[in-house]
Amino acid sequence: MSAPWITFRPELKVLDCTIRDGGLVNSHLFDDDVVRAVYQTCVESGIDYMELGYKGSRKLFAPGKFGDWKFCDEDDMRRIVGDNDSSLKLAAMADAEKTDYHEDILPKEKSVLDVIRVATYVHQIPVAIDMIRDAADKGYEVTCNLMAVSVLQDAEIDQALESLRDTPASTVVVVDSFGSLYGEQIGRLVDRYRAAFEGTGKEVGIHAHNNQQLAFANTIESIIHGCNRVDATMAGMGRGAGNCPMELLLGFLKNPSYRIRPVLQLLQEHFVGLREKLEWGALVPYNITGQLNQHPRGAIEMLSGEDRNNFVELYDRLVADL
Amino acid sequence: MSAPWITFRPELKVLDCTIRDGGLVNSHLFDDDVVRAVYQTCVESGIDYMELGYKGSRKLFAPGKFGDWKFCDEDDMRRIVGDNDSSLKLAAMADAEKTDYHEDILPKEKSVLDVIRVATYVHQIPVAIDMIRDAADKGYEVTCNLMAVSVLQDAEIDQALESLRDTPASTVVVVDSFGSLYGEQIGRLVDRYRAAFEGTGKEVGIHAHNNQQLAFANTIESIIHGCNRVDATMAGMGRGAGNCPMELLLGFLKNPSYRIRPVLQLLQEHFVGLREKLEWGALVPYNITGQLNQHPRGAIEMLSGEDRNNFVELYDRLVADL
Repeated sequence: MSAPWITFRPELKVLDCTIRDGGLVNSHLFDDDVVRAVYQTCVESGIDYMELGYKGSRKLFAPGKFGDWKFCDEDDMRRIVGDNDSSLKLAAMADAEKTDYHEDILPKEKSVLDVIRVATYVHQIPVAIDMIRDAADKGYEVTCNLMAVSVLQDAEIDQALESLRDTPASTVVVVDSFGSLYGEQIGRLVDRYRAAFEGTGKEVGIHAHNNQQLAFANTIESIIHGCNRVDATMAGMGRGAGNCPMELLLGFLKNPSYRIRPVLQLLQEHFVGLREKLEWGALVPYNITGQLNQHPRGAIEMLSGEDRNNFVELYDRLVADL
Repeated sequence: MSAPWITFRPELKVLDCTIRDGGLVNSHLFDDDVVRAVYQTCVESGIDYMELGYKGSRKLFAPGKFGDWKFCDEDDMRRIVGDNDSSLKLAAMADAEKTDYHEDILPKEKSVLDVIRVATYVHQIPVAIDMIRDAADKGYEVTCNLMAVSVLQDAEIDQALESLRDTPASTVVVVDSFGSLYGEQIGRLVDRYRAAFEGTGKEVGIHAHNNQQLAFANTIESIIHGCNRVDATMAGMGRGAGNCPMELLLGFLKNPSYRIRPVLQLLQEHFVGLREKLEWGALVPYNITGQLNQHPRGAIEMLSGEDRNNFVELYDRLVADL
């Protein structure tokens, strides 16, 4: 009997999305030294990709209300990474219908970015496909995050995957936006995505949320089912319940090109302090929205108010609204 | 294709061990109103078993240093539960070599307890078997927790299970004491235990720790593999990283005899306050000991000291000692 958990797959690659998904906790208002520390940690830990933020539309998002990482302008990125003289690839997320992609995504040769990650709800797939082609034509590696898959019908998923099959997206990511999926469901989704892309060379990715304390476990499950592109964040920082914690993921992956010690150093130097100012993690209100397969906004609102620990009131309200 | 996660197995039973395992956080010094609230919540939620504490030896544990739940004297238990006029079964844990079981475990007809849970390391199995027979002879349902299974050889596990096969223990529990096991490992252990007890009517249990944020996921995995006796604690309270949280478990189990709302009520009325005074959960130092398959004591010591966030120092020290 074999013990696959002590082996590794060299083709599996890790993406850090701390500043992008964690930026949803603080409107992307990170101090430069935190962004620089995350960048340097990614380089030192052998992490493959780092997502710096969004390519958000200035028509939709007022620059005064958001930090630089809502927009990922070239000058702001280069202030942190210079010309990125490292093997770490840099990514930015472009949300369908929230990005002025024709103007704001520059030709690859003018950008320090390597990858554009197009994020889309299922009803935005046609827009997303146009964005994928635009970014690929400009010279980027392009991936696609199909969000909120836990509320989609199988037929919708299949249609979306078929539509994405003939695009230049190199990876399509299973995104459990509400942190509601159990391991068995994640495994089946990865199987479904892999089957849809058989013969195309496309990889399947995973982006898990921690509402039910399952982000790390579901990430492992997806890896067992052949997922080779894995998202994680430092200290699990991310909107609401947060994400799969990098410090757990790197402890699981046995590829010797990854090193956990720089991540631990980053956590003690920067994230202990961030946790004193900002809140994320699998708090009870997020457990409730995750169990009910709902967007965490009800929990986020309650936690920002006076009556932040009235779990029963939240539960009763969400159940009544079902 | 079926969706087993929306079904339930009526034979699956849940045990709350908040006061027992959580008592390792505060030397069992719970206020009576907390113990009473947990008891009432277990009754209202339809939980099957509640473990009140240990049957600890007064020769080893000075009563002045520990709360009543280190000893579970009859008068103390009845102060909370009266004659336990409910369908909830009450349990106490008896540690091998730490319990004066001949004297301190009364005949069943003189006790409000229903179940004795004998906990043993593998080298104490002969003592544990004597304790199991003693408690069964006195009229109790008896179960056995084989601890720290993540550091045992397969041959040792098989020998222990063979030795337990002919005892009156009704359940043998897979105990991931260090919170180091991944789901695949948990599944294989449950398979191994079930195979060893085939034809005996014995059930397999699970007691997971949360060092790697895997307690809930591993509990689900064990259930998928046929485990029918499941330990959890309110708010995941337990030594170090804590346990599988009851509020997550009841959200997963679809048996209509369980109700989550009383648990949420308990959490907001008592456990929000307890968390302000006591610390447990999947903190980074516990991630590290879990990854290294070590007892959490190094992490517990560091967290109680001045330099409690020096994760790199802990990591370097534990790796150097391997």
